[in-house]
Amino acid sequence: MNTVNVALMGYGRVGKAFVRLVQRKKEDLVERYGFRLEPVAVFNSRGGVLLPGGAPSKKPLIDKDDDLDLERNPFWKPGRICGEVFEAHRTGVFVECTPSNIQDGEPALRYINHAIDRGWHVVTANKGPLVVDLNRVRQKAEKKGVRLGMSGATAAALPTLDVALNSLAGTEIHRIEGILNGTTNYILGRIEEGMSYEAALKEAQEKGIAEPDPSQDVEGWDTAAKILIITNAVFRTAYTLDDVRVEGITHIQPSLWERARNESKSLKLLGSYCRDEGIPKIEARLCFLEHTHPLYAVCGAQKGITFFTDTMNSVTVTGGKSDPTGAAAALLKDIINIHKR
Amino acid sequence: MNTVNVALMGYGRVGKAFVRLVQRKKEDLVERYGFRLEPVAVFNSRGGVLLPGGAPSKKPLIDKDDDLDLERNPFWKPGRICGEVFEAHRTGVFVECTPSNIQDGEPALRYINHAIDRGWHVVTANKGPLVVDLNRVRQKAEKKGVRLGMSGATAAALPTLDVALNSLAGTEIHRIEGILNGTTNYILGRIEEGMSYEAALKEAQEKGIAEPDPSQDVEGWDTAAKILIITNAVFRTAYTLDDVRVEGITHIQPSLWERARNESKSLKLLGSYCRDEGIPKIEARLCFLEHTHPLYAVCGAQKGITFFTDTMNSVTVTGGKSDPTGAAAALLKDIINIHKR
Repeated sequence: MNTVNVALMGYGRVGKAFVRLVQRKKEDLVERYGFRLEPVAVFNSRGGVLLPGGAPSKKPLIDKDDDLDLERNPFWKPGRICGEVFEAHRTGVFVECTPSNIQDGEPALRYINHAIDRGWHVVTANKGPLVVDLNRVRQKAEKKGVRLGMSGATAAALPTLDVALNSLAGTEIHRIEGILNGTTNYILGRIEEGMSYEAALKEAQEKGIAEPDPSQDVEGWDTAAKILIITNAVFRTAYTLDDVRVEGITHIQPSLWERARNESKSLKLLGSYCRDEGIPKIEARLCFLEHTHPLYAVCGAQKGITFFTDTMNSVTVTGGKSDPTGAAAALLKDIINIHKR
Repeated sequence: MNTVNVALMGYGRVGKAFVRLVQRKKEDLVERYGFRLEPVAVFNSRGGVLLPGGAPSKKPLIDKDDDLDLERNPFWKPGRICGEVFEAHRTGVFVECTPSNIQDGEPALRYINHAIDRGWHVVTANKGPLVVDLNRVRQKAEKKGVRLGMSGATAAALPTLDVALNSLAGTEIHRIEGILNGTTNYILGRIEEGMSYEAALKEAQEKGIAEPDPSQDVEGWDTAAKILIITNAVFRTAYTLDDVRVEGITHIQPSLWERARNESKSLKLLGSYCRDEGIPKIEARLCFLEHTHPLYAVCGAQKGITFFTDTMNSVTVTGGKSDPTGAAAALLKDIINIHKR
């Protein structure tokens, strides 16, 4: 039985959901995919729990279904333990779940580079390092012969990159349009129903859809980050956030809502890529969608993406769970696709 | 540069589109995926054209963009040349494009088994052999270490199996619902708009959407074959057509249309899989879809599929070109996914 080591950085909502999911799917992975996932480290900026390397430990790092109390765990070590993890265990998958920092990608970017240098695969739910330096990280990974899983950072349980890179392999994708942020889509839907922006945001926060600080979402940066990563991953380009025109949903003119109503269109925040006279245009922008548009019916906190191709016409994917479990499932999917067969 | 031999069996509408596509995408494959596709044989039941084995031929089998006139080609050989193909060329991809025969899968099944025995990968647009014997063919392929590409036979340019096996890896799929046949969906839509079945079918035939003999489609067998293959591929089961409850669209009671209208629902022919008290239920059946169903808006000759999962909720894919080019693109996609990396 092949055993795959997992080192998890970041033990917030997604990290916790990931550990629970790995516990829950343990048998299933062995049965269906022929490998065992062995968490060898869970850490954050304060320290972490780390299984000693060498002979396989008799006691697993995680042996129950409850969340770990990191600092009370017998394996707890304070301080920066990342280096030690890659020292103690020869190889595995490094799972990055710290909050996205789209300014400089740190500290995740440093850890990801470190992991790749040590020959570890990387799977990340963190957009930051990919927004800042995807192209170089990918080149490094290819050189080292390891894989970089980005599903968790590109709309998670909604498959986007899988579809573009596998299901549409061989096609020329000339346009991409996505509803990539569930929070803004939820708020826009409620405003469309007559609510004020403020009331809709408050409701979304109460329901746990919007974060306490919703600025990344409502100002369009989350959408911008995702379409940027998707664009760079699909076309192997190296655009930066500066190349993206970003618009949010915080100051929508009432006249736009009026127009949407009058023309029976739906106002959506789209992440989009297209080529305009040969020049790539990457945007997070408000768009009017006609009822014939494949994303027209994507309501509430749902997401969706449409790829427009030369030989397969347009292919649209919608749905996928928008919560920590969905993100964890996307991380696990990437790990499976790296190791199966 | 890695060269991948291609032997194509069946030179009808899909086979021709495939050859044209391979010509058109030649440079692109080299550039983006790092391999060259070399057609070494194109044949049908009467004979075929075959590039001699041994040293690479100076003259390619296909050197222009027009369709081949098989029998006037300098490489033409009459009779059954399949054995010779696998003899002359050590390895490659066998592309199966003969018409689907869902009764016994022949003659394709024999050729596919032969190809796998010889260590060739197989990519097929033909549902017949997969309906009849997927489980054994897959086991044989796994044993020989070759791959079996089924996209062309499972809704072609609409990604179905890719999504189930890759994008949803690690999830438990507990229900599948698909609009898997564009012809019937087109006809149902026109009847919904007030046309008679006969007039809608005639229009679909005039537009080239329905075949001259539409029985496989309108009687539900095409949908049944596709959901059967998808089910067996996803769950590694060995159900047969006898396990599928099949319903067509040829004799829909007017009362059903009335009910659809009264309840604002859409009547669709779904291929579906679910478990009913633990017992799998595979069906091609007429269903009323509410406007909230993710396939409600799949109109005209469009297709779509929804997977209901445990950890990612539902994921829906819609679109994809429903014509020979779309099918050819699906074949090419499978070939790329076998050979890339």
